[in-house]
Amino acid sequence: MVAIAGLCAGIGAGVGFWIARGAESSAPLSPPPSHTGSGAPLGSEIAGIRAPAAIPYVDYEDVPKPAYYADAGRPMHERMEALVLDLQDRLIEALETLEPSRRFIRDRWEREDGKGYGISCVLQDGEVFEKAGVNVSVIEGTLTAGQLRSMRERNAQTAQKLSATEEYEFRVAGVSVVVHPRNPYAPTAHKNYRRFEVYRKGATESGPVMAWFGGGADLTPAYLFAEDASHFHQTLKHACDAHDTKYYPQFKAWCDRYFANTHRGETRGIGGIFFDDLEDKSPEELFRFVYDAGSSFISAYVPIVARRMLMPYTQRERNWQLIRRGHYAEFNLVYDRGTKFGLMTPGARIESILMSLPLTARWEYMNRPEPGSPEDALLQAVRTTTNWAAA
Amino acid sequence: MVAIAGLCAGIGAGVGFWIARGAESSAPLSPPPSHTGSGAPLGSEIAGIRAPAAIPYVDYEDVPKPAYYADAGRPMHERMEALVLDLQDRLIEALETLEPSRRFIRDRWEREDGKGYGISCVLQDGEVFEKAGVNVSVIEGTLTAGQLRSMRERNAQTAQKLSATEEYEFRVAGVSVVVHPRNPYAPTAHKNYRRFEVYRKGATESGPVMAWFGGGADLTPAYLFAEDASHFHQTLKHACDAHDTKYYPQFKAWCDRYFANTHRGETRGIGGIFFDDLEDKSPEELFRFVYDAGSSFISAYVPIVARRMLMPYTQRERNWQLIRRGHYAEFNLVYDRGTKFGLMTPGARIESILMSLPLTARWEYMNRPEPGSPEDALLQAVRTTTNWAAA
Repeated sequence: MVAIAGLCAGIGAGVGFWIARGAESSAPLSPPPSHTGSGAPLGSEIAGIRAPAAIPYVDYEDVPKPAYYADAGRPMHERMEALVLDLQDRLIEALETLEPSRRFIRDRWEREDGKGYGISCVLQDGEVFEKAGVNVSVIEGTLTAGQLRSMRERNAQTAQKLSATEEYEFRVAGVSVVVHPRNPYAPTAHKNYRRFEVYRKGATESGPVMAWFGGGADLTPAYLFAEDASHFHQTLKHACDAHDTKYYPQFKAWCDRYFANTHRGETRGIGGIFFDDLEDKSPEELFRFVYDAGSSFISAYVPIVARRMLMPYTQRERNWQLIRRGHYAEFNLVYDRGTKFGLMTPGARIESILMSLPLTARWEYMNRPEPGSPEDALLQAVRTTTNWAAA
Repeated sequence: MVAIAGLCAGIGAGVGFWIARGAESSAPLSPPPSHTGSGAPLGSEIAGIRAPAAIPYVDYEDVPKPAYYADAGRPMHERMEALVLDLQDRLIEALETLEPSRRFIRDRWEREDGKGYGISCVLQDGEVFEKAGVNVSVIEGTLTAGQLRSMRERNAQTAQKLSATEEYEFRVAGVSVVVHPRNPYAPTAHKNYRRFEVYRKGATESGPVMAWFGGGADLTPAYLFAEDASHFHQTLKHACDAHDTKYYPQFKAWCDRYFANTHRGETRGIGGIFFDDLEDKSPEELFRFVYDAGSSFISAYVPIVARRMLMPYTQRERNWQLIRRGHYAEFNLVYDRGTKFGLMTPGARIESILMSLPLTARWEYMNRPEPGSPEDALLQAVRTTTNWAAA
């Protein structure tokens, strides 16, 4: 059991009200409420939004392991496919417990060349979630010259195993999640787990030449709540520690390096974990790690949204949230490796790749929060790195 | 004199009204007005916005040539600096004639290392212009390894003249403009002209090893008006033809190739002209061409805004505009070479580089305009290329 008792106990202690959508623009520009305040009482209903009667917290360790979990006889790419579909279903169920107005729309698509499919699930313009996407894709194809080059460039091991002049096929199964809540106090979160396999062209029968896992989860608040950041990191650390105590510190640091808007001298948010090219243990051991890391996302994130989704806010906080979402879009479009890979893939489903972008974003020239303001506190947090799991 | 009589004569013939800001969200979702409709009558005042009494059209050929124009004794980088400052002043004056509520804020900055300055002029949140930036920068520095590599990669000539192992300094003077009007019928426009000089490290006295001009102007409507597209292209063609009749067809095609959101199979807008690495004539001849091309932007663009800025619109058109602005942001962040160069430049002024991004943008999952709708007509226009100068 993950130690989130502190967080759960905190919910329900405060009072709050919800500012109806559409009324935002006429709301006074008053200072935001104290950042130690909690959300609405459990079970309360304000402006038509009902706070959950109980925190929809499911400890992933309490969920019975599904059949694919230990089915070592099945090819790993099939088990990974089963895992990502399972993670998709479980997360959607958890998020829908918080959203009163909309359900996820499920959209299954096939590649035109028949080489893969995906299930894009999107909830847009909800009361609690402004835009949430939970996507699975299971794709195979031939690596383009550009994709092969960028794979070889980023990793010496890959450069050794893959020849620049040979042709390769790939198989990838992954789940990709971005959740942008409407309330500026409820953070955006992202997770993505995938297994990538590379085969010699025309020789998929003889198994992959190389294969690895990649993924991670990270949190992007517009306003900093140290308790949220700690809870998120502690939950991920717990999942990592069960497999290798070196993982969390290593992947936490990697996350801070990876999700960097270098041009702004900022990280995208307050981090989490990130890893790629992971092949330091047997596929079986790594699969179980990815199962835990992927499953822990619900425990790490959903209670935070439940806690923040009814906090009062004004146009000031909304505006700041949209500016931070502009930075979010910058990271995804300028740096993100998965987005770039997708945009470079001929015939890729652009709508699913760019689903990660926020519903709305804003770029104001020279927006500079007042020193000492809550907005400034967030800026300080994304300009340093903090050991949140210990905080 | 550029042939825009047709366009000017059309203005003032129609009737229209302006939907006040803030009222947008409660406006009915009615179909947009006919796309042959004109703007408000000249000199009329609606909801506090006064239409200009006359089209603020200045034919650049009628403006007396400034001293720097023919001053062959001055180093070219100084004359280019004078030109971009002049273009900045003239454009700001023209745009301000249309904007009742705000002036441009001028912001002069210096690089911390003393190697350059810029003047960023921004008008944000106006009645007519939601965000307009007119920037000049005059910078020198040492080419980073990454910048040198990408310069050599894109051009065989450059690869010949610049050694991969030597160090180089550069000087660049440029003007960069992006105008995002508020009215969804008034198109976004961009222009950028610059001169780039490369010197052997520590040998600026002996003149540049190579130097070139680059630039262009292009139009990005959310709704297509063929007469606007034709006027814009005809004006640019006129400026090109005065110097080389091969320029317009060549630079028009280059613009269509360059401003491509390849991942969407769309051009960013309906094009214009684009060129880079231009050194096919003497610096003197090219400077005069860039003078004309840069100056013609006012004649090409400002009358279009004057014509569209008071057209009625509803939330439907505003929403579509914001979606198109999302695509605009995608192009700038994913593909634009100037943006990339800026983001890679250590110590660069990020606020000025990203000033091109719209104030607001929107990403809706699976937004698909109805076939035959005005929104769909725009999509058709950005999925083909049209010879607008002949249209």
